[in-house]
Amino acid sequence: MRQAGRALPEYRALREGIGMLESCFRPDLVTEITLQPVRRFGVDAAIFFSDIVVPLKAVGVDLDIVAGVGPVVAKPFETAADLPTLLDGLPPVTEAVGLLVKELGDTPLIGFAGAPFTLASYLVEGGPSKDQRRTKALMYGDPALWNQLMERLADITLAFLRVQIDAGASAVQLFDSWVGALPAADYRTFVQPHSARILAGVGEAHPAVPRIHFGVGTGELLHDMGAAGADVVGVDFRVPLSAAVQRIGPGKAVQGNLDPTVVFAPQEVVDTMVDRVLAEGRSAEGHVFNLGHGVLPETDPDVLTRIVDRVHEVTAA
Amino acid sequence: MRQAGRALPEYRALREGIGMLESCFRPDLVTEITLQPVRRFGVDAAIFFSDIVVPLKAVGVDLDIVAGVGPVVAKPFETAADLPTLLDGLPPVTEAVGLLVKELGDTPLIGFAGAPFTLASYLVEGGPSKDQRRTKALMYGDPALWNQLMERLADITLAFLRVQIDAGASAVQLFDSWVGALPAADYRTFVQPHSARILAGVGEAHPAVPRIHFGVGTGELLHDMGAAGADVVGVDFRVPLSAAVQRIGPGKAVQGNLDPTVVFAPQEVVDTMVDRVLAEGRSAEGHVFNLGHGVLPETDPDVLTRIVDRVHEVTAA
Repeated sequence: MRQAGRALPEYRALREGIGMLESCFRPDLVTEITLQPVRRFGVDAAIFFSDIVVPLKAVGVDLDIVAGVGPVVAKPFETAADLPTLLDGLPPVTEAVGLLVKELGDTPLIGFAGAPFTLASYLVEGGPSKDQRRTKALMYGDPALWNQLMERLADITLAFLRVQIDAGASAVQLFDSWVGALPAADYRTFVQPHSARILAGVGEAHPAVPRIHFGVGTGELLHDMGAAGADVVGVDFRVPLSAAVQRIGPGKAVQGNLDPTVVFAPQEVVDTMVDRVLAEGRSAEGHVFNLGHGVLPETDPDVLTRIVDRVHEVTAA
Repeated sequence: MRQAGRALPEYRALREGIGMLESCFRPDLVTEITLQPVRRFGVDAAIFFSDIVVPLKAVGVDLDIVAGVGPVVAKPFETAADLPTLLDGLPPVTEAVGLLVKELGDTPLIGFAGAPFTLASYLVEGGPSKDQRRTKALMYGDPALWNQLMERLADITLAFLRVQIDAGASAVQLFDSWVGALPAADYRTFVQPHSARILAGVGEAHPAVPRIHFGVGTGELLHDMGAAGADVVGVDFRVPLSAAVQRIGPGKAVQGNLDPTVVFAPQEVVDTMVDRVLAEGRSAEGHVFNLGHGVLPETDPDVLTRIVDRVHEVTAA
C-alpha cells in the first residue's frame, strides 16, 4: 500500500510544512519517502510514492490535495470542454524513478497510477464522494461523454505508467479506489474496457512487467478486474483469498489482504491473522502478501516490522 | 429504507428546528413521518421512523445525533463499567406504533432496530468511523468484554423490537449498517451469535413476524446473515440479486437492491435499472423490491413515485 509512509515518524518529519502534491513533484522527496518503508521494514518491493491525482495535476487540472479531505478539484468536469489534455512526459517522476532504481539495487520498484474510474470520480464530483452520485449520473445519463472522459483518462494513465516503466519500474499497480461503488454489470459496460486498454498498453510495450490491479470493496468485481488484463488482482480484507481465487479464476496471482485495523490488536492476534492470510493465499497460483487496505496513520511501525518478519519466517519455512 | 423521508419537502418542513433524536421520541412526529412516504408513493409497507441509537438513548447513554455527522457518544465505551443498562419498555415508541397501525389500515408496518455490531461501533468509536478500528481492536483484543457488550446490546435490541411488535408491527428489520467492515470468519465468531439470538428471540415470541436483516457492503456475509435466522436478507446494490440468492441458499427471500444514485439518471435508464433488479430477483423464493442503500436527500421525489409505479406495473403484469 502506497500510504505506508503515513505511520512513520521519519515520513511525518520529512513532510512537515510540505503539501502532499508538492512532495509528489519533488524527486528528492519522492525518492526518500519511497525508500523509508523499505529501509525500516525490509519489504520485498518498494511502492512508488505518488498520488492518484498527480497525472491530472501534471496536465494542468486545477486541483489540490487538502489535508483531512483529499483531492479537491477547482472546477468539476461537466462538458467535453473540460476534458483534460494529454500527458506528455513527467520529468520529476522520471528523475525520481531513476534515482530510486539506483538506490534500491535488487529490490524491485512497483509503479503506481490511479485508474480512470477513480480519476473520473474526482473530476466529476470535485472531490471525494461517499456515493459517486454525480459520477454515476454522468455515466448512466450521458454514456458518450462518459466514454470520451474515460478514454482521455486512460490515455493519461497509460502515459503515466509508461513514464515509470521507462525509468525503471519493474511492475505496476493500477489502483481503482472507488470502483467498488459499481455493480458488476455496470463495471463491465462503463469501466472495464478503459482499464483493459491501459493494462493491454502496458503489456504490449513491456510484456515482462507484471500488472497489479486493485480496488476497495471489489468483492463482486474481482473476476472482471482480473479479466481486464491484470496479472495480479489485489483483494481487500473483506474477501478471504481462497474465495477470491475462486472468483478470479486460473492464470492470475492475488495480492492482499490483512485487515489494517488488526494492527491495534494484541500481538498473538496479529500473528494469527497473518497466518490466516498466508494459509488462504496458498490456494492461489501466486500470492503477494499485503494489507487489504491502506496503513492507518496511527499504526505502530513496530507492529508492521513484526508482520513483515512473520511473513518472511512463515514463507521461508 | 428508513431514510426515505429525507428526500421529501413535507419531511423537511416537519423536522424544521427539531433535532433528529427529539423527533424519534415524539409519537406524533414519528407517526406523521412514517406515514409521509406511504401517502406520497403508495408503497406496500411502511418503515417505522426511528434511528439506530434510539434504544441506547432510551437506556441513558449520553449521545446525540449531530446533523452532517451522525451519532456522537459523549463517553465512548471502554470497560465493563460502561455497559449500557437494559431497556424496559419505551412508551413513545409503543404509542407511535399504536397510532401508526390504526392509520395504516391494511398497509403493514415494518419495525426497525440497529443490530449489535453497529451499536457497539457507535459506542466504542464514539461516533461514525470509516474503519471501525477501535471496535475491531476491542473485538480482537478482548473477546470477553466484547461478548459482554454484544450480549447487552442484543438484549436491548430484542427488547426494542418486541416493543414494536407488541404494539402492532407486522415485520421487523434488523439493520447492521457497518457489519460489512468484517471478514466473514470474524463475523461468524464475534457477531453472528448475537444477531442470531435477537432473530431467534423474535421468532420464538412471534413466529408469524418476518425478520429482515440488512447491512451495507455485505456481499461476503450474505449467507451467514441469512443463517443468523433472517427470513429475508437485504442486499446492497453491489451484488446482483441472482448472485445473492446463490450465496444465501434456499428458504429465504431477498430484499433490494436498486442503486440509489440511479435516480439522477434519465428516466429510461431508471426504468431499465428497475427492470434489471426485478428480473434478477425472479430467481429468489421471494423478493421485496427496495433500494440497495438509503435514499439520497437530493433525490427528486417524483422519480421515486415513478419507480414505485414501475415496480407495481411490472409485477402486476
